[in-house]
Amino acid sequence: MSELSVDHLLGIKYLKKEDIDLIFATADHFKEVINRPIKKVPSLRDITIANLFFENSTRTRLSFELAEKRLSADVVNFSAASSSVKKGETLIDTVNNILSMKVDMVVMRHPNPGAGIFLSKHVKASIINAGDGAHEHPTQALLDSYSIREKLGDVGGKKVVIVGDILHSRVALSNIFALQLQGAEVKVCGPKTLIPKHIESLGVAVEPNLVKALEWCDVANMLRVQNERMDISYFPSTREYVKQYGLSRKILDKLPKEIVVMHPGPINRGVEITSDVADSDHAIILDQVQNGVAVRMAVIYLLASKIKQ
Amino acid sequence: MSELSVDHLLGIKYLKKEDIDLIFATADHFKEVINRPIKKVPSLRDITIANLFFENSTRTRLSFELAEKRLSADVVNFSAASSSVKKGETLIDTVNNILSMKVDMVVMRHPNPGAGIFLSKHVKASIINAGDGAHEHPTQALLDSYSIREKLGDVGGKKVVIVGDILHSRVALSNIFALQLQGAEVKVCGPKTLIPKHIESLGVAVEPNLVKALEWCDVANMLRVQNERMDISYFPSTREYVKQYGLSRKILDKLPKEIVVMHPGPINRGVEITSDVADSDHAIILDQVQNGVAVRMAVIYLLASKIKQ
Amino acid sequence: MSELSVDHLLGIKYLKKEDIDLIFATADHFKEVINRPIKKVPSLRDITIANLFFENSTRTRLSFELAEKRLSADVVNFSAASSSVKKGETLIDTVNNILSMKVDMVVMRHPNPGAGIFLSKHVKASIINAGDGAHEHPTQALLDSYSIREKLGDVGGKKVVIVGDILHSRVALSNIFALQLQGAEVKVCGPKTLIPKHIESLGVAVEPNLVKALEWCDVANMLRVQNERMDISYFPSTREYVKQYGLSRKILDKLPKEIVVMHPGPINRGVEITSDVADSDHAIILDQVQNGVAVRMAVIYLLASKIKQ
Repeated sequence: MSELSVDHLLGIKYLKKEDIDLIFATADHFKEVINRPIKKVPSLRDITIANLFFENSTRTRLSFELAEKRLSADVVNFSAASSSVKKGETLIDTVNNILSMKVDMVVMRHPNPGAGIFLSKHVKASIINAGDGAHEHPTQALLDSYSIREKLGDVGGKKVVIVGDILHSRVALSNIFALQLQGAEVKVCGPKTLIPKHIESLGVAVEPNLVKALEWCDVANMLRVQNERMDISYFPSTREYVKQYGLSRKILDKLPKEIVVMHPGPINRGVEITSDVADSDHAIILDQVQNGVAVRMAVIYLLASKIKQ
Repeated sequence: MSELSVDHLLGIKYLKKEDIDLIFATADHFKEVINRPIKKVPSLRDITIANLFFENSTRTRLSFELAEKRLSADVVNFSAASSSVKKGETLIDTVNNILSMKVDMVVMRHPNPGAGIFLSKHVKASIINAGDGAHEHPTQALLDSYSIREKLGDVGGKKVVIVGDILHSRVALSNIFALQLQGAEVKVCGPKTLIPKHIESLGVAVEPNLVKALEWCDVANMLRVQNERMDISYFPSTREYVKQYGLSRKILDKLPKEIVVMHPGPINRGVEITSDVADSDHAIILDQVQNGVAVRMAVIYLLASKIKQ
Repeated sequence: MSELSVDHLLGIKYLKKEDIDLIFATADHFKEVINRPIKKVPSLRDITIANLFFENSTRTRLSFELAEKRLSADVVNFSAASSSVKKGETLIDTVNNILSMKVDMVVMRHPNPGAGIFLSKHVKASIINAGDGAHEHPTQALLDSYSIREKLGDVGGKKVVIVGDILHSRVALSNIFALQLQGAEVKVCGPKTLIPKHIESLGVAVEPNLVKALEWCDVANMLRVQNERMDISYFPSTREYVKQYGLSRKILDKLPKEIVVMHPGPINRGVEITSDVADSDHAIILDQVQNGVAVRMAVIYLLASKIKQ
């Protein structure tokens, strides 16, 4: 396969295994590029990309921006806080306006699930979903899988547990799709109230006990506790959460084998994981961040190739 | 004429007909450039431009930023929200500080009418007014006329009606000046309380009835209802406004001839115009946006040529 | 000396006299560059710089950004207002995340004194302190000294008085260190409640009377009255402050000799200095701003040379 089967990256759900293989092979090349002294390639000098962030973001926005600049694309940034979105304009009108300025690609974070999918049907540009509500965050799942592949050689056949608030997590859903597509086995672990009722229909088992989940897995992906999304009705307290689902060095050291610890960031140290875990050799958290730029360069590069045809 | 008669673009009021002709001829060239795969020219590699936005803006700021980048200028952005303006510094001091960093041109949006004119007398840089209160918004009027010329061949001799809140609209005033300078005939239509008392002294007739105004015109420029500026004392309600001044497909279809529909954006669908008008072939709203980048490139390029002399 | 003795610019306190000489010689070169039509050099095409501003700033942020762009570095901006800092992430985690994206240098403004020093011990990147609380603002002190050297030929042997709120001023502290290192004599003048108790242990004399201070000095650096930091408990009122510490043309004209007037900006006209002083030939306020870009280019260039080794 020499090109993606899709024209947008709206969710992992829409990708084939071969798409992921192509993205990773391309990311291998760009990872080598960004470790050179001059981290830039002239590939996309003819592409203009608009970053549309309708929700705040630090690392994802920066990661996309660096990926775009290192591909030599022209970049324009748009954040909802200082935009006319407040003035009652529809999403399609906002985006069509921006596209009329000869923009080729839109990277969009939006609070509403499906915003990117909806948009892709109504505008002429390649859309990359940088997170749509509690739905999908496909580049995060790709960089997570890429980091597992880098650490363990392959994603296929690995056992991965995702721990935390699965219900509200776009990272969890995209990871489930990506891991299964590549032949990994996935379990989830977390408070009953934060696990979607029909998760088993996705082929995902629920393991309520953290230690048992860790004993089973090769990789633990510890989701961030999103206090801003959590609510008294979902779980008693952060202290209770830490007691039952927080990962400490003490727990890690008792496991029968070495496991890989991942976290999408930003970390609440002492909540999802303790500092001695975050800073240990088990954790590949900063590798995930570094790989994020290479994986995003690959996705942008491959989608741009389709525009140029 | 091979150069502009002005050193700043403060308002259409200060331009000659020949300036507009020169801007449009130059914009023709840049429109061709931005439709190439590589949309950039190296013309202004030696110019640094500061975008100073003391009011929020999406499309105007993005349009200027793209125009500047496609001319290869160095760009610095400054928005009042995160600035020391709050600290009590005067406008002249703020701008002089920025200019001391070797900035050649300032694109400024400011809430106070005349802010750019005032500034141009006190600082050494080329100033482009990107909207000064309810006064002028010259690049919007230029892109509007450019879009009429593109659609109808010429602006001279055309009949244009501007509909809506004329009183608070910098778009209306700049359009009136630009259209008349090019030999078009202009009427305005809107609630009596939103028409300036002395508008007829500008040679502009008032037609209070929308259907009569539309029957007369070749082009209708439907201004945005700015709820944020409107006030109970100006007009009873949005519903009343829509009933009397909203443009629907039904009205359009009853007209004796085809007319061109314009809107400066962002659109309130169902208020100034219905969706079936906004998305029809009558509307050239997205052409306006696209032409905005080319027209702004032309203005910046021509003013920069004068700096370099 | 051909390279700096330090790997970071955390404060003037950590510099040697030779470092300042090297920075100034390098700034001389860049000042010549930014007065050319094309103000850019390709020196740092292989360096990515992140500007991390945890406090609002206009001129310092713009000045750094222009310095970075004119050195052809890749630049990413991050401001706390729209960041995940609010989400409870630690400073080290935030910065390490950004650095994992292959960022070589961090320019940081932070409200906490010592934030940059702390960071430099925990992350692998060159750190430039762009202001840390009431502690240091080293590039401001460097550009101030550079401007004195430009105006008076040398800093050594000159008499400099710093007037105003010394207690809360990072500009004052960095200036004291820089001036003394270069052999200047420093006095401070201001309300007793705004002078640190142990200032004399730094070799700085207190002169409570403004006229006497001015009669003594070659250069007066008039600090900004920071209403946002001032408090009823520190000083009776702005009116009282102006009466005792405000510099007017009348006072200047009575002095036995010409003195140089500096101000770090933004100016409160009519408070620290009257307009006829700010706009007079005595004032080198806009030279300070212009020199700021050249001095920052020098600092960034010299620190980057050490990274590349």
